Amino acid sequence: MSKFIPAIGRLIDEFARLPGVGKKSAQRLAFYIVNMEQSQAVAFAEAILDVKRKVRYCDRCFNITDQDICEICQDVKRDQQIICVVETPRDVIAIENTKEYHGYYHVLHGAISPMEGIGPNDVKIRELIIRLQGDETKELIIATNPTIEGEATAMYISKLLKGTDIKVTRLAHGIPVGGDLEYADEITLAKAIEGRRLL
Amino acid sequence: MSKFIPAIGRLIDEFARLPGVGKKSAQRLAFYIVNMEQSQAVAFAEAILDVKRKVRYCDRCFNITDQDICEICQDVKRDQQIICVVETPRDVIAIENTKEYHGYYHVLHGAISPMEGIGPNDVKIRELIIRLQGDETKELIIATNPTIEGEATAMYISKLLKGTDIKVTRLAHGIPVGGDLEYADEITLAKAIEGRRLL
Repeated sequence: MSKFIPAIGRLIDEFARLPGVGKKSAQRLAFYIVNMEQSQAVAFAEAILDVKRKVRYCDRCFNITDQDICEICQDVKRDQQIICVVETPRDVIAIENTKEYHGYYHVLHGAISPMEGIGPNDVKIRELIIRLQGDETKELIIATNPTIEGEATAMYISKLLKGTDIKVTRLAHGIPVGGDLEYADEITLAKAIEGRRLL
Repeated sequence: MSKFIPAIGRLIDEFARLPGVGKKSAQRLAFYIVNMEQSQAVAFAEAILDVKRKVRYCDRCFNITDQDICEICQDVKRDQQIICVVETPRDVIAIENTKEYHGYYHVLHGAISPMEGIGPNDVKIRELIIRLQGDETKELIIATNPTIEGEATAMYISKLLKGTDIKVTRLAHGIPVGGDLEYADEITLAKAIEGRRLL
């Protein structure tokens, strides 16, 4: 017999397309759906379609939202003078979870990567610059990832803003809290030494 | 702001319900869907619904199929005298992949587990006994899992068939091929010694 009946084969393929889902996991997930209650499977499929129907990008900061302007941008109690620039909406959530940041965000939806052919115009950098012209931003925290692409993006934005009054900052590098010195990579350790602070 | 917009929160919950998908993975998957092409998301949702619409159990062996009788049961070239009893349809695929077995199957859809309140009537044991009455089966290979539940199920079926002409066998235990003696658990190693064969 053919290894899987077509409907299951297709579902396995769909699951295997998801990030971090290998072939074996995709099979396990597809068979789980087979054994699911009909109503649960419908709820799952609906949730997928619903996300595509309702979720869009905020007109201002490009975070995801189900409105024109996201809840963060709508919150007038936030610090109007700071914008934190991140690569993805998930980074917004990570920073919000710290409860330490009270400014606004700007989501680039990627980072500059010449290797992958992603230039400045393929991420929301132009939109950031336009946005900065109208408002009272004093500081831009560039919280792109500490990767080659993230660093290149940070450098690019910082150059664009040279000569303006906007202070451009970058998240600190260092040993993760609760981490072990022994297991830190050399570059992180070097950055931690370089950025050492007085006790 | 609430941590996730409702549509995404619901999709994260749906993903987190799947086996082996933790909260972080569920978030990653949900955001992947957000960024998916509309048509891809629709294809994914359709694949889920399609599986529920088309997949059913074979009337004879209870393997999954999109017909009344599954392809394996329809294959008259198979050995009519052997039935391999497994817990799940995925076990059928695993055994088919060996290309070493050419008899039929019977899928129990579970194993007897007093701890979880699963008795003989909650799995397809009665259907197996009824099926055996009409046909020419000579051997029943009980390939339930080597767990307490799988062993209990094997013992139960073997007792039911005591006194009949049907030979009841069980898969061999031993060291996995390519495995390392040192890392085999004691019970497996004991079974491997007990089942040793002449070279």
